[in-house]
Amino acid sequence: MLVAEIETPALLVDADALDRNIAAMAQSLPGDRLRPHVKAHKCTSLARHQAAAGHLRFTCATIRECEGLAAAGLGHDLLLANEVLDARRLAGLIATGVRVTLAVDSADTIIAAADARVREVVIDVNVGLPRCGCAPADAGKLADLARHHGLEVRGVMGYEGHAVGLVDASERAELCEAAMQLLLSAHADVGGELVSAGGTGTYALNTWANEIQAGSYVLMDTAYGRLGLPFEQAAFVLATVISSSPGWSVGDAGLKAFGMDHGNPELADGKVLFCSDEHVTVTPPRPVGDRLWLMPAHIDPTMAYHERVYLFSGDEVVDIWPIDLRGW
Amino acid sequence: MLVAEIETPALLVDADALDRNIAAMAQSLPGDRLRPHVKAHKCTSLARHQAAAGHLRFTCATIRECEGLAAAGLGHDLLLANEVLDARRLAGLIATGVRVTLAVDSADTIIAAADARVREVVIDVNVGLPRCGCAPADAGKLADLARHHGLEVRGVMGYEGHAVGLVDASERAELCEAAMQLLLSAHADVGGELVSAGGTGTYALNTWANEIQAGSYVLMDTAYGRLGLPFEQAAFVLATVISSSPGWSVGDAGLKAFGMDHGNPELADGKVLFCSDEHVTVTPPRPVGDRLWLMPAHIDPTMAYHERVYLFSGDEVVDIWPIDLRGW
Repeated sequence: MLVAEIETPALLVDADALDRNIAAMAQSLPGDRLRPHVKAHKCTSLARHQAAAGHLRFTCATIRECEGLAAAGLGHDLLLANEVLDARRLAGLIATGVRVTLAVDSADTIIAAADARVREVVIDVNVGLPRCGCAPADAGKLADLARHHGLEVRGVMGYEGHAVGLVDASERAELCEAAMQLLLSAHADVGGELVSAGGTGTYALNTWANEIQAGSYVLMDTAYGRLGLPFEQAAFVLATVISSSPGWSVGDAGLKAFGMDHGNPELADGKVLFCSDEHVTVTPPRPVGDRLWLMPAHIDPTMAYHERVYLFSGDEVVDIWPIDLRGW
Repeated sequence: MLVAEIETPALLVDADALDRNIAAMAQSLPGDRLRPHVKAHKCTSLARHQAAAGHLRFTCATIRECEGLAAAGLGHDLLLANEVLDARRLAGLIATGVRVTLAVDSADTIIAAADARVREVVIDVNVGLPRCGCAPADAGKLADLARHHGLEVRGVMGYEGHAVGLVDASERAELCEAAMQLLLSAHADVGGELVSAGGTGTYALNTWANEIQAGSYVLMDTAYGRLGLPFEQAAFVLATVISSSPGWSVGDAGLKAFGMDHGNPELADGKVLFCSDEHVTVTPPRPVGDRLWLMPAHIDPTMAYHERVYLFSGDEVVDIWPIDLRGW
């Protein structure tokens, strides 16, 4: 199949750029130094390529991501880096022998984990992003509580999400270090082998964590594209120009094809004016039938809209992968 | 099943509010005066309720929406209110006897329609929104071209999308009237029985079109909620508080559960600070385990993220509908 034959809108990945991104990261953070976050791509076929590059441990954000990776034979060592209160499905998964380590940050989440016969946890520590995670000073006593409930505490995690996207690299490095000092202080109280943190924006700066949870590096987006990282834009939404007017043209990909929280997608050779449900209005105008290669502003919620991704090399489609970890 | 037993995140619809919205619209625009747009909900079960209220003709934005409605027995008279260049699947559908009328706005789209043995079209006219549609003055000659290619021209459509969301009702009415004068001038040149236009924001103002393409009225969102329309917020994303800190709490629904182009979802009894992929950070803080009823800012791209919708009445789940028209 040729790229020219793909029905639009469609999600495309440059297979060669993908391979280069995977190789570049595997060289920087080989093996277990990277625990790729599958929330960025939600695709077990892509995870299999990451595993082939030496990363056998994965990070997940949802129970379905854990279930899907396990079903694909990739459940060697999964970190569900999120709090869960309703752990029934997780309990079922663990009962089949899949290794899932769960994040906990409160007595409630520890008790929910213990009740569901989860075996292993990490203490999730707030390192500066106002989201999940306990206060660093509380991490030790939560670890004690978890052990009291029969849980194995493998260490700590703490996501410096307030730092990963900063364009100024020195500011990013400074915030990352401050965050990791908090995480290390918590780790001193908690113990365990894992100090899990980081993302695509800090993978090379974060020398304190012993595993990095980067995900977006593999496909990239325009937000991470501004950070000067050694990864290429590999994901595109392909649209066809279906209408053209004197001042603009309209492609057949819109709000249901792009995560929009970081703003409009971008074109290498034009400007996106706005998106509607199934349309993108771009300038300068171009002929009906032309293809638009749109770069998502935020890859994670973009992937979650698409059923499949077309891998291409040059003009050829070389594979089609289901985005099989969508939903919850 | 009880609402309290639903795993989160989940999309919920208040079945009673839904019924009231359907009834209110059916009273204002009975039968064929409304051609409900299914892009707003992407759910054949919901479309069936609209049909039961007397609306047997539907508007679609994608070929898959046409295919799904037809498979559900709702293909009596479908308007694909969008331009299509690759009409192969549409041709297959029409060959089975489904009535689909296609929007065209250029020689290219007319020829694509004729080549695919589409039988009926409307001329899509630009009435002020910089998107699809021909210049009003060109509508007549495009209709002639379509007839020359053997297509039946059923009339015109023109979406006043630049007007439907305006909070100021008199400004909305003024822009709507100006847009419809353009559409009527095009219709005078085109002929045919259909003058199709309108949306939830203009359904009551637009007295010039003879069918209104409203969709969002049935579920509503916070953007349309500011317009003082007689429709209730019926759709919610339910989240569970999984983490709580002194200044905020975190629910388990995020960027992959909400269309974000209109901004953050809203809470009746609190404030959303920000969304991450699988998290919503809200204030004031509340206990772990509490449920958050989040109102989407934009319903259409929200629906497209969810596999199913839970219909509830009081504390009970009364039905579960698949969102079966997602994708393309």
